[in-house]
Amino acid sequence: MRTEWKDFFSENIREFSGYSIGKIFKYLNEPGIISLAGGLPSPEMFQKAELRLASNRYLEKDIEKIMQYTAIPGEQEFIDAILDFLKKDDIVLEKENILVTSSGQHGLDLTGRLFLDPGDTIIIDRPTFAGAIVSFQMERPEIVGIDIEDDGINISQYREVVHDLINKGKKPKFFYVVPDFQNPSGITTSLEKREKLLEMSYENDIPIVEDSPYRDLRYRGKSVPSIFSLDQKMEGNHVIGLYTFSKLFCPGMRIGFNIGPEAVISKMTNIKEANVLNTPKYNQDMCTAFLTEMDLESHLEECRNYYREKLDVFLETMEEFFPEGSGVSWTKPEGGLFLWVTVPENIDTNELFYEAIKYKVAFVPGDVFYASSPSLNHMRINFSYASKEELTEAVKRLAKCLEAQK
Amino acid sequence: MRTEWKDFFSENIREFSGYSIGKIFKYLNEPGIISLAGGLPSPEMFQKAELRLASNRYLEKDIEKIMQYTAIPGEQEFIDAILDFLKKDDIVLEKENILVTSSGQHGLDLTGRLFLDPGDTIIIDRPTFAGAIVSFQMERPEIVGIDIEDDGINISQYREVVHDLINKGKKPKFFYVVPDFQNPSGITTSLEKREKLLEMSYENDIPIVEDSPYRDLRYRGKSVPSIFSLDQKMEGNHVIGLYTFSKLFCPGMRIGFNIGPEAVISKMTNIKEANVLNTPKYNQDMCTAFLTEMDLESHLEECRNYYREKLDVFLETMEEFFPEGSGVSWTKPEGGLFLWVTVPENIDTNELFYEAIKYKVAFVPGDVFYASSPSLNHMRINFSYASKEELTEAVKRLAKCLEAQK
Repeated sequence: MRTEWKDFFSENIREFSGYSIGKIFKYLNEPGIISLAGGLPSPEMFQKAELRLASNRYLEKDIEKIMQYTAIPGEQEFIDAILDFLKKDDIVLEKENILVTSSGQHGLDLTGRLFLDPGDTIIIDRPTFAGAIVSFQMERPEIVGIDIEDDGINISQYREVVHDLINKGKKPKFFYVVPDFQNPSGITTSLEKREKLLEMSYENDIPIVEDSPYRDLRYRGKSVPSIFSLDQKMEGNHVIGLYTFSKLFCPGMRIGFNIGPEAVISKMTNIKEANVLNTPKYNQDMCTAFLTEMDLESHLEECRNYYREKLDVFLETMEEFFPEGSGVSWTKPEGGLFLWVTVPENIDTNELFYEAIKYKVAFVPGDVFYASSPSLNHMRINFSYASKEELTEAVKRLAKCLEAQK
Repeated sequence: MRTEWKDFFSENIREFSGYSIGKIFKYLNEPGIISLAGGLPSPEMFQKAELRLASNRYLEKDIEKIMQYTAIPGEQEFIDAILDFLKKDDIVLEKENILVTSSGQHGLDLTGRLFLDPGDTIIIDRPTFAGAIVSFQMERPEIVGIDIEDDGINISQYREVVHDLINKGKKPKFFYVVPDFQNPSGITTSLEKREKLLEMSYENDIPIVEDSPYRDLRYRGKSVPSIFSLDQKMEGNHVIGLYTFSKLFCPGMRIGFNIGPEAVISKMTNIKEANVLNTPKYNQDMCTAFLTEMDLESHLEECRNYYREKLDVFLETMEEFFPEGSGVSWTKPEGGLFLWVTVPENIDTNELFYEAIKYKVAFVPGDVFYASSPSLNHMRINFSYASKEELTEAVKRLAKCLEAQK
C-alpha cells in the first residue's frame, strides 16, 4: 500500500503548502471572537434582489448556452461591458486585450505561470498581498521585496535593487504592485511614484503587473490614474492589469479579468484553456448584469459610504485607545478594506495573535505578507466585515491585550 | 513600446499553444456543415426546468453564502452527495479523499502540476484525450504513448516500455488512462487489463490516473469495475480518479472532482487555493441538486436511451455506406460520445478534413490525440450532438468524400 507520495511530487510543489494564513482560521469561529482577520466584503453590500432577478432572466432566455461549453476568452457581452467599464479609467482596449478569469487569484496564477521559471527574479512590495506571493511561489521564483512607504514603494531602494539584480544577470521578470489601497497596508501609490515606476520599467525593460481589486472603493481623496492608463498614454505597452469583481460585486461568482498586450493575453488564454477551459457563462452573465443593469454607480457610492463609516469608526477608536506614545501606529487608507497596524518592535504578532484570541479579538499576523525575512511587529486589520459596534469593541480589546504585554 | 514578449515567457509556456484543434473550429459554423467534430453533450438532454427550479431555491435560501468566499475543497453538502454517488461504484471514501474541481480539465491540470517536472516521463494511450495531453504538456514532460487495442492498452508493449524506461532511470510518474468509452476511440478497457494494469502499478510503483467522464453513459454490455474500486479492494492506494459533471449534467457549470489518497488530495487543494481559490458555490449547489433532487437514475437512463439510438443510427449507416473491402473501419463503443474511424493509410485526415468541408461534413483529424508521432489516417467522430437525420446524412457525405479520394 502506497503511503509516501512526496517523492512523486514535482519540485515546484513538493514543499509548497499554500496560504500559511490557514492555520489561524480555526480560531476565528470561536464563540464571541470579533474577527478583523478576513478579507470578506460585507454581505450587507450584496445586491441580493438584483442577483435573483438577473439570474431568473438569464436562465429564462439563455439556459441552453449557460449549460453548454462556452468560449475560453469569455462571453462577448461581458467583455463589451468590461471594455465600457474601463473607459471611466481612461483605458481603451479591444477584446483581444482582455481575458476573463475565474477570479483575481486566477489572474495572478496565469501571470505567474506565463512568466516564471524556477529561479527567476520578481520584485514585490514589502509587505504585499499574500495571495500573490503564494501563487507566484508555485513557480519557485526568487522574490525580492522592496519596502513600501506612505506613498508607495521606496523608489531609491527599488532603483538600487534593480540595478544590482541586472548587474548580477538576474533581471526581474516583472514588478508586482497593488497601487490602490494595497492589501495589507491600505497604502496608495502616489502619481509621482507611479510615473517613476513606469520610467524605470521602460529604462530597464521590466513589465509591471498592476493588481487593482479595490480601485473603485475610494472613500476620500482624489483618484490617481492607474499605471495601466499612464502606460497607455505613453504607448509603453509595458503593463498587465489584474481585476476582480470580488470586492465590488461579490466574491462568490469567482469572476475577474486580466488586461494587457495581445501577445500576453493570447498566451494566457492558451494556459487558461489547458487549466480550466472556459469560465462558467452563468457567473459571467451575473457580472454582466452587475455592470450593465444593477445601477453600478449608485451601488459603488453606497459601498463607499458604508465602508467609509466603518473605517472612520475604526480610526477614531484607534486614536482614542492608542494615544501618542503608545508605541502603536497605523496607516490611514483612503479606500479599500484593510489597514496596517505596527506594534512595538519587541512584539511578534504571531504570538500576540494567540494572546488576542484570549481577549476575543483576531487579526492576521503581518508575516504572511512577506515573501521572506518578514517584519514581525505588524497586523493586518480588515474593517469591512465587522459591524461598527464590533469594530469599536475590537479596538478596546486590542488595547487591553497590548497593555497586558507591557 | 514593448512588442516582443516571447523572451519574457517561462520555458514551460514559451512554445505552448494549447489545443491545436482550435484551427478547425472556424470551419464548423459554415452554413450547411454537419459537424461531428465537437465534444458537446446534447442540449436535448439538459435538465433545464430542473436547473431553473434548483437555482431559484438555492438563491432563495442561501444567497449570502452563494455570494461570499467559500471553502477551497468544496461545499460539504456537495461532497456528501459525491460520496453517495461513488458508492454505486463500490468506492467508499471520506471527505479528505475528495477535492471539488472547476471541471475535468481542472482536475487534469491539478494532476500535472502536482506530479510533473520538465523531463519527467508519463505514459498515455495512443490515441488518448487531447485535453489531457495539453494540460500535461504545460509541465513539459516526456510523454510516452502505448498503442490501444480493442480491449484497452497493449499490455505487453506497456510492460516492455515500462521496464525499458526504468532501466534508463526514467521511471514514469504515472500512467494516464480513460478506461470507459475512451475519448477519442470509444474503447473500453477490459476487466482483465484493468487488473493487469494494477498489478504492474504495484510491481513498479507507478500510480494510475483514471479519468472517468463517460462512465455512467453505458448503452449496452456490462459495466466493468473502475480501476479505482479495484485498487481500493486491494488496499493499494495507487489510483487517482478524475470526474466531471460535464457529460452527465452539463458542461456549463464547470464542476468536477478528483479523488485519491489524502496526501495527494490535500496537496492538490494547496495548488487549487493558489490557482483559483474556491470553486463557486452556486455551481456546486446546482450539481448537488442534480445528484440529490433531479431523479438521477431516470435522467441517466434517458440519456443512455437517447445516445444509444444515435450511436446505432451512426453505426448502421456506416455499415451500409462502408461495406467490407471499403478500406474504412471503425470502433463500436458500448457507451460514451465518440468513436474512431480509420481510413486507408495513404489518407492524411488533416488534408481530408478540408475535402470533407467541401462535402459539408466535419470531424476531428486524429493526430491531435497523440502526444508525438501521430498516426494520420484516423478521425474522431462525435455522435451525441447532431440529430439522427444529420448523422445519416453525414455518413453519406463522408462516403462520397472518401470515394472521391480514390
